Amino acid sequence: MKLAVLGLGTMGAPMAENLIKAGFEVTVHNRTRSREESLEQLGAARARNPAAAAADAEIVLSCVSDTPDVESILLDPEVGAITTLKPGTLVVDCSSIEPEATRRMARQLREKDIGFVDAPVSGGSEGAIHGTLTVMCGGSEEDYERAQPVLQVIGSRITRIGPVGCGQIAKMANQVVITGTFMALAEALTLAYRAGADPDRVVEAIGGGVAGSWILDNRSQKMLKDDYPLGFRLRLHRKDLAIALATARDVQVPAPIASLVATIEDALIAQGYGDEDMSNLARFVRHGAGIPDGPMKA
Amino acid sequence: MKLAVLGLGTMGAPMAENLIKAGFEVTVHNRTRSREESLEQLGAARARNPAAAAADAEIVLSCVSDTPDVESILLDPEVGAITTLKPGTLVVDCSSIEPEATRRMARQLREKDIGFVDAPVSGGSEGAIHGTLTVMCGGSEEDYERAQPVLQVIGSRITRIGPVGCGQIAKMANQVVITGTFMALAEALTLAYRAGADPDRVVEAIGGGVAGSWILDNRSQKMLKDDYPLGFRLRLHRKDLAIALATARDVQVPAPIASLVATIEDALIAQGYGDEDMSNLARFVRHGAGIPDGPMKA
Repeated sequence: MKLAVLGLGTMGAPMAENLIKAGFEVTVHNRTRSREESLEQLGAARARNPAAAAADAEIVLSCVSDTPDVESILLDPEVGAITTLKPGTLVVDCSSIEPEATRRMARQLREKDIGFVDAPVSGGSEGAIHGTLTVMCGGSEEDYERAQPVLQVIGSRITRIGPVGCGQIAKMANQVVITGTFMALAEALTLAYRAGADPDRVVEAIGGGVAGSWILDNRSQKMLKDDYPLGFRLRLHRKDLAIALATARDVQVPAPIASLVATIEDALIAQGYGDEDMSNLARFVRHGAGIPDGPMKA
Repeated sequence: MKLAVLGLGTMGAPMAENLIKAGFEVTVHNRTRSREESLEQLGAARARNPAAAAADAEIVLSCVSDTPDVESILLDPEVGAITTLKPGTLVVDCSSIEPEATRRMARQLREKDIGFVDAPVSGGSEGAIHGTLTVMCGGSEEDYERAQPVLQVIGSRITRIGPVGCGQIAKMANQVVITGTFMALAEALTLAYRAGADPDRVVEAIGGGVAGSWILDNRSQKMLKDDYPLGFRLRLHRKDLAIALATARDVQVPAPIASLVATIEDALIAQGYGDEDMSNLARFVRHGAGIPDGPMKA
């Protein structure tokens, strides 16, 4: 089957690699074109823009950073995939973007008889490399079925949540849940340490009970060592939180924890910590907000 | 072995029952004496006060609500256990109380050659009934070893964190971690539901990944049904948070999530929801703070 993969970042590149290895005929395109080279070595064709990449594709997989990027690669009237995609093809968008914009794009594609599945993922770069991502899907049952050959390669836990946009809603929920667990874990471990207990023992003691979580099992050590290699970039989580908070306001849901953590993430990003793993929320607890003194310089 | 069990509440009563069934010779005392009756029927002796209960005991197990209660049953100069406990005996306190008060009490008991282990638990009434509690212990290695026959009956995950007080510190950490996970989960599920996704599917999709936790697996349904049977009483969690926040201030650790959730719990308790399971934090998100209008009536 012929695929186009648009966007070869931390997530898109290993997805493309796994799809090539799984036997798909893959054409790749990335805005920074040099990132296409390693995929070409694995057997991918390269295309100069999304339209060229999509020209022969049965399925387009897109994975970029934000809503305007997806709109541009899919819908740009000159070089967007929509200008070349044939009726009966399918777009699978793995980017994490606004559910409302997702619905709009899907409608526009539908007018040309192009199907659409929103399929944002969680599981980080490790999950993308090992093809073990959690994939949260929105789309018709028919489009979801057509997307399966691709989804099965990139993920190991694939769920259809509902119609178009519902994958994005699930991703939002995912990003909101983890705010509270990360931040409260940071408070708890720092408290235990400063109050005189061995925090490793505390993690061991509480991890198997009500306080147990993936984050406690897999991120406590980064917090205890005060060292935050990736993982999942704080800056990208903050982008996802912006989508969640905007949606929360639209649908009138108070989100006190997500709002508070967004503020703390802003403080950390302002200090230059946006490209660390988001377990670096513990920095705020261990070292204080650390906002520089005096009026902000332009 | 002869035991005294002091405090027969939601946690203490099933602990005493399991200890009787395990073959210990148990004497019980509870402030509201009628609660001793069901244990008497299982074979326990009853005592009119803590001193009388402790007179022949090799180990005293205490499990009451708050710091002053523990101080009273253990140290009261007229009827406290300390007045009758013999040198070489041991107190195991399963209450959740202040680490600093715990250390003071342990010192006072030590002067009479009475050992002490703080052993607060988590796992709720189900855990107490089934003897599967998580037990977080503080005490000397020697005292911890002596407490094992009792601990093994009440819990299934038993950890010595460090010297006296460290069990309480671990329990505090546990109570802080869960604030963030409960509250952010409530935000996320309400957001998903209001934005138009099936929240059951969202729980299914995100539960196996980075957002996964015991709380998501075991408490999402209460939140989705908006019905909060026990479980673990919000009011008691708020009491534990007070200890955590006081300690956080003492050791100079900012605890933004724990502080925020404490405020939300206060609002819910003021509205009469203190005796529901603490997953009722979702009420705040679904139904708003709901503070009655106008100045507070005395």
